[in-house]
Amino acid sequence: MKKMILASTSTIFGSNYLEYLFSVIESLFHNSKNILFIPYARPNGISHKAYTRLVSDTFNKINLSIVEIDNYDNPTEAINLCDGIFIGGGNSFLLLDKILKYNISEEITKKVNSGTPFLGTSAGSNVCGITIGTTNDMPIIHPSTFNSLNLVPFNINPHYLDPIKDSTHMGESRETRIKEFHQFNNQIVIGLREGSYLEVDENNIILRGSKTARIFKKDQDSFEIEPKFNLNKLLN
Amino acid sequence: MKKMILASTSTIFGSNYLEYLFSVIESLFHNSKNILFIPYARPNGISHKAYTRLVSDTFNKINLSIVEIDNYDNPTEAINLCDGIFIGGGNSFLLLDKILKYNISEEITKKVNSGTPFLGTSAGSNVCGITIGTTNDMPIIHPSTFNSLNLVPFNINPHYLDPIKDSTHMGESRETRIKEFHQFNNQIVIGLREGSYLEVDENNIILRGSKTARIFKKDQDSFEIEPKFNLNKLLN
Repeated sequence: MKKMILASTSTIFGSNYLEYLFSVIESLFHNSKNILFIPYARPNGISHKAYTRLVSDTFNKINLSIVEIDNYDNPTEAINLCDGIFIGGGNSFLLLDKILKYNISEEITKKVNSGTPFLGTSAGSNVCGITIGTTNDMPIIHPSTFNSLNLVPFNINPHYLDPIKDSTHMGESRETRIKEFHQFNNQIVIGLREGSYLEVDENNIILRGSKTARIFKKDQDSFEIEPKFNLNKLLN
Repeated sequence: MKKMILASTSTIFGSNYLEYLFSVIESLFHNSKNILFIPYARPNGISHKAYTRLVSDTFNKINLSIVEIDNYDNPTEAINLCDGIFIGGGNSFLLLDKILKYNISEEITKKVNSGTPFLGTSAGSNVCGITIGTTNDMPIIHPSTFNSLNLVPFNINPHYLDPIKDSTHMGESRETRIKEFHQFNNQIVIGLREGSYLEVDENNIILRGSKTARIFKKDQDSFEIEPKFNLNKLLN
């Protein structure tokens, strides 16, 4: 029953917010009348209100409307009543911290596991993994744990970036960071490049978009998977 | 009495490990016979042993020798007995987690505040700030707090990186991330470019190296400071 779209990024270069995903979003939410938007990740530190307005205006372009979680006295009630969920990008530490503080993790997973269509972008995709341990974000706030929604049985690294050719910068590459992660964690990590997204249909997790994705397994060399690959094959 | 060198990176492009800092390190440790190396940050996930060997071989080139913290039954004793400290780079979450678990934070700060020469590179500089909240590292392990050694009264962002010209990557820039940090934190952040280091001499904190550094203050536009600038001026 699970229906999810987990995108690496909300916005690709030279295009407006979510635009490259419009047909995917229309299809995902075609039966949803009450899509709940969760703005907790606050990209650039913008307010919940401003973030919700951006998403509302964008969804209106494809004749979808969203409801604001802050309109409810109680976020759990908002999740119970909705028939679609979108968690937007921003800072993963902040997003997870709010999910933990409002104690809505179980409610979200129950809802999504029962078939409520779900969209995540960037940090909103990252929190759907086992932990947020492969985020690129700064730890601007200290959540009580890095364990997250566990809606897919691996970790996601959004905005996955290949080493920049001819760069003289000596900071760790993304691959090095994920290698360090695997010293202390066992789960598979999916490096999802911008423009790629995962389409989750119950147990099938298909790579979509035109780019390959990079797979990192503990104690193994990393490798690429092609678009249309079913990640389910990696998990058995 | 405080004598510290806090470097953005251990290694600059086209040069060997620590090489660009050799004369600075010689001068810092010229009276030290018992320099303690703390390898907890484990860059690339290398072992304490391998990391210590690299540092030992490098220090030997300038006729300095180091002692391994793992040779002592008790890290607190190792800190008590040393007359110089070097905390190497790697992963800041892992480094802070170990410092907290071994409960040596107070011992290190007492020692450094009493004049024991201190060298930090990358993550080893980052932990000298108020918190590790401006690290670029992946949260591969969950420390019980992000509060760190507080040996300098601000936060450091090592390997500070300007936005890459003509990049089509949409992931957040370093400046955006630090702006998000300032939604929840008040301290000044120093974006320290590779090749730059801070020379701390009691209350004077001088920017060294040939590059400018970027200063971020909450609710203000960020700005550059020139080499030789005394950061003390920003703090009053």
